[in-house]
Amino acid sequence: MSKPTLALLSVEDCWRLVPDAGVGRIAVSRDREAPIVVPVNYVVDDRTIVFRTGAGTKLSLLHDRPISFQVDDFDPLHRTGWSVLIRGVAVVDERVCDPDAAPVPWSGGVGRRTVVRLWPSSVSGRRLEAPEHEWDPRGYL
Amino acid sequence: MSKPTLALLSVEDCWRLVPDAGVGRIAVSRDREAPIVVPVNYVVDDRTIVFRTGAGTKLSLLHDRPISFQVDDFDPLHRTGWSVLIRGVAVVDERVCDPDAAPVPWSGGVGRRTVVRLWPSSVSGRRLEAPEHEWDPRGYL
Repeated sequence: MSKPTLALLSVEDCWRLVPDAGVGRIAVSRDREAPIVVPVNYVVDDRTIVFRTGAGTKLSLLHDRPISFQVDDFDPLHRTGWSVLIRGVAVVDERVCDPDAAPVPWSGGVGRRTVVRLWPSSVSGRRLEAPEHEWDPRGYL
Repeated sequence: MSKPTLALLSVEDCWRLVPDAGVGRIAVSRDREAPIVVPVNYVVDDRTIVFRTGAGTKLSLLHDRPISFQVDDFDPLHRTGWSVLIRGVAVVDERVCDPDAAPVPWSGGVGRRTVVRLWPSSVSGRRLEAPEHEWDPRGYL
């Protein structure tokens, strides 16, 4: 049986794959250090990524700085899946606290009223695809 | 019902949570640009993270540079889960092609013979925990 193959995704395909809401990851560079990567729950709003954080936290200090958003979904059984990376600039609005304007964070108790919006400058993705007509489910049982 | 609470994890807890093998994400800073974040399948080897990439690819050019590894697992139903971030330095060995020395990449056809090992300089993690004695499964159905 052949291995899955890696295919680049079009920008349109990337946006189709990214769920409207869920858990993704925000990555931030710190000068010459290794990036910080933290999960966030997010929503997609008119091709921007919106999430919340607490005032004064690392993510709230990102206004006008480059950040990345990554989300993926893999099937370990069939070794297929996809990954999308959205890179761009963060716009932070400390004043926003309209509950309808951003996803409610899963964690409580830290007053995550700061809304961060990622305006994309590049969108890219890859998909691990199963070779057509070569699946034999019995091989995985 | 209370929301899940966010707890910091000890280094020992982080290593206990990171599966011995699976899919994680490698993040790399590029000067002042937004980080690149790509999924990799990896193995844990004596508290280092080992993965493969193709010679000449972006990840193979990381020798002696800072990179991050992130892995998480969330339960969207109960809104609980954990995330671990391992930051450190990449050591690339273009010569290694012993199939037993590193995980076999899921994707075929690109000759991923280059082994990259992340030597951790910091390990951190967070867990979203359910408040004890407050679960009411009926609330989620």
